[in-house]
Amino acid sequence: MKTLACLFFLISVQVFANDGSELWLKYDLIENETVRSNFSKSINQIVIDTQTERSTLAARELQTALKGLLGKEVPILFSKENKNLKKSIFLTDSYAGSELGSEGFKIENLKILAKTDLGLLYGTFAFIRHIQTSEKLYFSQIENPKVKIRMLNHWDNANGTVERGYAGSSIWKWFELPNQIDPRLIQYARANASIGINAVSVNNVNASSRFLTSEYLTKIKGVADFLRPYGIKVFISVNFRSPRTLGGLETSDPLDAGVRNWWKEKTDEIHKYIPDFGGFLVKANSEGEPGPQDYGRTHADGANMLAEAMKGRDGIVIWRAFVYKADPDGDRFKEAYEQFKPLDGQFDKKVIVQVKNGPIDFMPREPFHPMFGAFPKTPLAMEFQITQEYLGHASHLVYEAPMLKECLDSDTFSKGKGSTVSKVIDGSLDNQALSLMAGVANTGSDANFTGHPFGQANWYAFGRLAWDYDLSSEQIAKEWIQMTLTQNTQAVAQLTDFMMASHPTYVKYTYPLGLHHMMGEGHHYGPQPWLEKSGRPDWTSVYYHRAAADGLGFDRTGKLSNALKLYAPEVQENWGKPETCDLNYLMWFHHLPWDYKLSTGKTLWNELMSRYYEGVEDVKKMNDKWQTFKPIIDPEIFANVSGRLQIQEKEALWWRDACYLYFRDFSKMPLPAGLEMPNRTLEEVKKIEEIYHLR
Amino acid sequence: MKTLACLFFLISVQVFANDGSELWLKYDLIENETVRSNFSKSINQIVIDTQTERSTLAARELQTALKGLLGKEVPILFSKENKNLKKSIFLTDSYAGSELGSEGFKIENLKILAKTDLGLLYGTFAFIRHIQTSEKLYFSQIENPKVKIRMLNHWDNANGTVERGYAGSSIWKWFELPNQIDPRLIQYARANASIGINAVSVNNVNASSRFLTSEYLTKIKGVADFLRPYGIKVFISVNFRSPRTLGGLETSDPLDAGVRNWWKEKTDEIHKYIPDFGGFLVKANSEGEPGPQDYGRTHADGANMLAEAMKGRDGIVIWRAFVYKADPDGDRFKEAYEQFKPLDGQFDKKVIVQVKNGPIDFMPREPFHPMFGAFPKTPLAMEFQITQEYLGHASHLVYEAPMLKECLDSDTFSKGKGSTVSKVIDGSLDNQALSLMAGVANTGSDANFTGHPFGQANWYAFGRLAWDYDLSSEQIAKEWIQMTLTQNTQAVAQLTDFMMASHPTYVKYTYPLGLHHMMGEGHHYGPQPWLEKSGRPDWTSVYYHRAAADGLGFDRTGKLSNALKLYAPEVQENWGKPETCDLNYLMWFHHLPWDYKLSTGKTLWNELMSRYYEGVEDVKKMNDKWQTFKPIIDPEIFANVSGRLQIQEKEALWWRDACYLYFRDFSKMPLPAGLEMPNRTLEEVKKIEEIYHLR
Repeated sequence: MKTLACLFFLISVQVFANDGSELWLKYDLIENETVRSNFSKSINQIVIDTQTERSTLAARELQTALKGLLGKEVPILFSKENKNLKKSIFLTDSYAGSELGSEGFKIENLKILAKTDLGLLYGTFAFIRHIQTSEKLYFSQIENPKVKIRMLNHWDNANGTVERGYAGSSIWKWFELPNQIDPRLIQYARANASIGINAVSVNNVNASSRFLTSEYLTKIKGVADFLRPYGIKVFISVNFRSPRTLGGLETSDPLDAGVRNWWKEKTDEIHKYIPDFGGFLVKANSEGEPGPQDYGRTHADGANMLAEAMKGRDGIVIWRAFVYKADPDGDRFKEAYEQFKPLDGQFDKKVIVQVKNGPIDFMPREPFHPMFGAFPKTPLAMEFQITQEYLGHASHLVYEAPMLKECLDSDTFSKGKGSTVSKVIDGSLDNQALSLMAGVANTGSDANFTGHPFGQANWYAFGRLAWDYDLSSEQIAKEWIQMTLTQNTQAVAQLTDFMMASHPTYVKYTYPLGLHHMMGEGHHYGPQPWLEKSGRPDWTSVYYHRAAADGLGFDRTGKLSNALKLYAPEVQENWGKPETCDLNYLMWFHHLPWDYKLSTGKTLWNELMSRYYEGVEDVKKMNDKWQTFKPIIDPEIFANVSGRLQIQEKEALWWRDACYLYFRDFSKMPLPAGLEMPNRTLEEVKKIEEIYHLR
Repeated sequence: MKTLACLFFLISVQVFANDGSELWLKYDLIENETVRSNFSKSINQIVIDTQTERSTLAARELQTALKGLLGKEVPILFSKENKNLKKSIFLTDSYAGSELGSEGFKIENLKILAKTDLGLLYGTFAFIRHIQTSEKLYFSQIENPKVKIRMLNHWDNANGTVERGYAGSSIWKWFELPNQIDPRLIQYARANASIGINAVSVNNVNASSRFLTSEYLTKIKGVADFLRPYGIKVFISVNFRSPRTLGGLETSDPLDAGVRNWWKEKTDEIHKYIPDFGGFLVKANSEGEPGPQDYGRTHADGANMLAEAMKGRDGIVIWRAFVYKADPDGDRFKEAYEQFKPLDGQFDKKVIVQVKNGPIDFMPREPFHPMFGAFPKTPLAMEFQITQEYLGHASHLVYEAPMLKECLDSDTFSKGKGSTVSKVIDGSLDNQALSLMAGVANTGSDANFTGHPFGQANWYAFGRLAWDYDLSSEQIAKEWIQMTLTQNTQAVAQLTDFMMASHPTYVKYTYPLGLHHMMGEGHHYGPQPWLEKSGRPDWTSVYYHRAAADGLGFDRTGKLSNALKLYAPEVQENWGKPETCDLNYLMWFHHLPWDYKLSTGKTLWNELMSRYYEGVEDVKKMNDKWQTFKPIIDPEIFANVSGRLQIQEKEALWWRDACYLYFRDFSKMPLPAGLEMPNRTLEEVKKIEEIYHLR
């Protein structure tokens, strides 16, 4: 009988288990009774003086939140009918104070003040976040977003797959749109609004022309109409060859009058469907995509043509700088800079150039892109990658905020000390009118949207940092944990530490000391440092790590490549000498002998191996630590993370063994004392990667 | 205030809305209070005399069901401790009666009797179904499944995509298995057990060798371990070239000793992971897949080699007969028959040959495959396709049971009248030891598993028919509706009619009068009757419809192809004359002049056009009918189906217009009087299909 009684209990739990679909908007009852009771006593109603669809959404969200957090039904009243504001949360979008911009808000105790209903929506979510994460009800806060366009880039394909997506299929159901809108989009839209995301591009930058057909524009209109109340504008990634593919023209030359006219007409057509269309996102002349260079034109020619088509509209053109040519003697690190530098000042005012955080491709740790700070006449947008293409997909737990912050806080020194990347991005450094931060989304059809439950934290963190890059990673982690995992104060602190340690841990067992680009070919999962042949040399691993008898690393100080020279002198000074270079960037800039003595006191080889081994140990510790949270975490979430941590432990070992067994043939050096020899051969380890190439 | 009050109500509903994830296992409270109260009074406890994991599952399922249906907590007691069976549902797996086979069950009022815990599980689900769909508690029933292996074939790829899947990505999360088992698999497994499905092949028949690596075998073991308590055995689709790809051998020749040994060792290895491994499913020498013919061997050589590897085990080899060569003078209709006929009698006892229901490829209406009844020395398995590859994907509402029944009930006449396809499949006609019915699954990662809410009914119907092909389509529809959509008696009857009409409607607006294979190339969505060039002639549309000035249809009576001769004389007689041939199969066997007078009194052209136009009108009626169900259907499900019906209406028109505008150039005949001319040109209609080829 004991077994069965227990089983009955299990079933009951199962029904109410948390599948993560509510994200950080669960609004669980505040457990601290004193706090809850105090809050509850002080709030009897919501009073609102506006009636727009968006303000109504805000009031309803607050009502839902209060019902969950306080267990109290709070009515929504109109201020016209209710002059008594006692014990009321008051919402207005008619605030006139000059301290607020159009998306800003001011909270004064129980008043949420904004100039627009979008500001009001953001203020309402901020207020809700406050009561979820603070024990004090009354507070004052003024906020304006630092970056104007805070955007998710969905790399979603028309067939429902997601490029570099690890959480199921696309959240957009193209075959069903616009007639049937997936109810999950409500959660998606609320989540975005709650962190201030105000723009999304719906389709992959490797773009299908399909999205510009009227058939698909009606579908995108369905998405735009649905997202509009949440303050989210829709962008489309476009294929530069569309005038030929769709229009039947003989060229897509951006200087051709027919082509220009085609884009003008298409842009007009789009606006018939989506009057507040956000604009175009373009990947051109990159990795095989078509572009203006196919016709002997420049990126500026291409971008300006689209800007012209957008003339008189609010929309903009986001032109990606992720370009690199297949030059065996070149250095991919420099190529975007070199291609775009001559164009600085040539772009239309409607164009913003979107630059990845680092010069290669979303490596777990990259120096900031040398374009930042070096383009005073061009607004530059930041492109981060939230989806974990190089961070262990949905299997590994990696909290990305510290990685994002590392880039944003980097000093370009382009206008002296304090010329941080964040000041480039918000437009303040060079007084740019446009500003944009984009994150390649990690959302998919999985019930919890992100596959790994902690992937939600990365979506959350991206949005929070796009709103305010000065927030600390710890603060953001803490908020997310409190809203998503637990209210237990001690656990919140421990989980914050747990998350903060995750990125350094991942880097240790994959790319310590500034190694980069050694992942499995194509699929980008697991290690493949031995990759030496691919479609292009800069798609191999050996191109980057340059392991040889004489040492390891890519010398970018001038000997092999002068890429370091692209940075300001202060930066060159910081990174240019191996003895003072940040060890996390060492192999990005230096080729050093295996027995080179580092500032840690260890040789390069010993430090490298120590870090690989430490990384594995750190994952074991993460795993152990996670087990201690069992009593306070929802059982389904707990089991889910536990399972993935097991995978992570196994795969950290895979990385460690692969890299030791491969590099030792060059270093000819033994493992540092005390480190245990892998119990497998390099051939065996190679076979694991090969599995992912079996059709 | 009115608006806001109303909005508040909406939020509350939203939280409890039905996303379909509970399938037909929702166990909603029985609405009829008299019935509920009678049931409730008569059931006080569940008494069970067995303690296996599977029996426990059965008891727990019953307990959960009673809690939902009756709103009553019913304890589970062991018979040892509780001799009083008054007001008890009694469960035993020690029943000895000879009327039951190992999976059968007997229900005698409140006793559920079986010889095995699997029989008990099935009996329990039958009992639950009974109380959901009947107003009488006490009843008697004896059931044994008619087919031994009742199987889902998942065409799921290692990368998470699903070939011909329209409901998100794969339900198997390969990257996370075996460490993290997706909790959705509980629903999946319960659903299968509830309809008697006892086998699944986990991967696409276009098989990756990846699934035979030890890395992936541990993952499949995770699935097998999870599904075992639910009585579901796991099969693997294998790539015939695996000895080369994985084993490094120089050949995969099935007569090569090394190859045979490789398969033997691999089979042994699989059994270390999965002791009750179901067996192999093989697509060989079909559509580019490798196979024994690559080495000059026969299908029997290939299959028998795998059977040999399985020797001494319970597992079997399922060898698909879906083969056809690219012969411009041949007829794809005949090719499987011709390739396999000489092999009848040559297959090992462990081999079963899996034949699609019809000779081409899951067309909406096909004559039964001529192999059925013609292979007395070979057990033949049925392969149905549940996923709607040619039935409008997840956009169109098509209840498939009548289509499946049409095939199963067909008389092959191979041993005289009554030699139905179902008697071939259950092994009774030719006294075969093996019997199997497979359905290509329509399940995916979408919250409701099948995309279209009514897709669930097709999964349900397949399972029910695999268990008992004598069940009527109406009966199955009624059960599903009662468990899934509504308990309202009148609505159940109307919804049954609604579902029953859906397949004839789909056929009318796509493939009336036996037309076939005219869908969009590759993607198989929408019409493309004009397709005349493809990789092979038998991948075009014109190959099949043979539209010309002199008429329409593929003459298989001997003039163009003698395929009809493959059938028994009685069947030839039925279908061989255009004046008596079932109109639904007419164009399958006859090429007739456009002005040929049909039994309906109309000319071929007029009948064809009337059906296309009627089909569109029928969809409009479906749409109108569905709107009348609004008050009694869950709002989320209602909106979901409504949206898809809008798409269906638009696309029925697409088919109609495409086929009229295309065929009229051959018939040179006007639309029958009263039918409205399409308001678009053939060129415009062609452009819609082209969208799906834009990258």
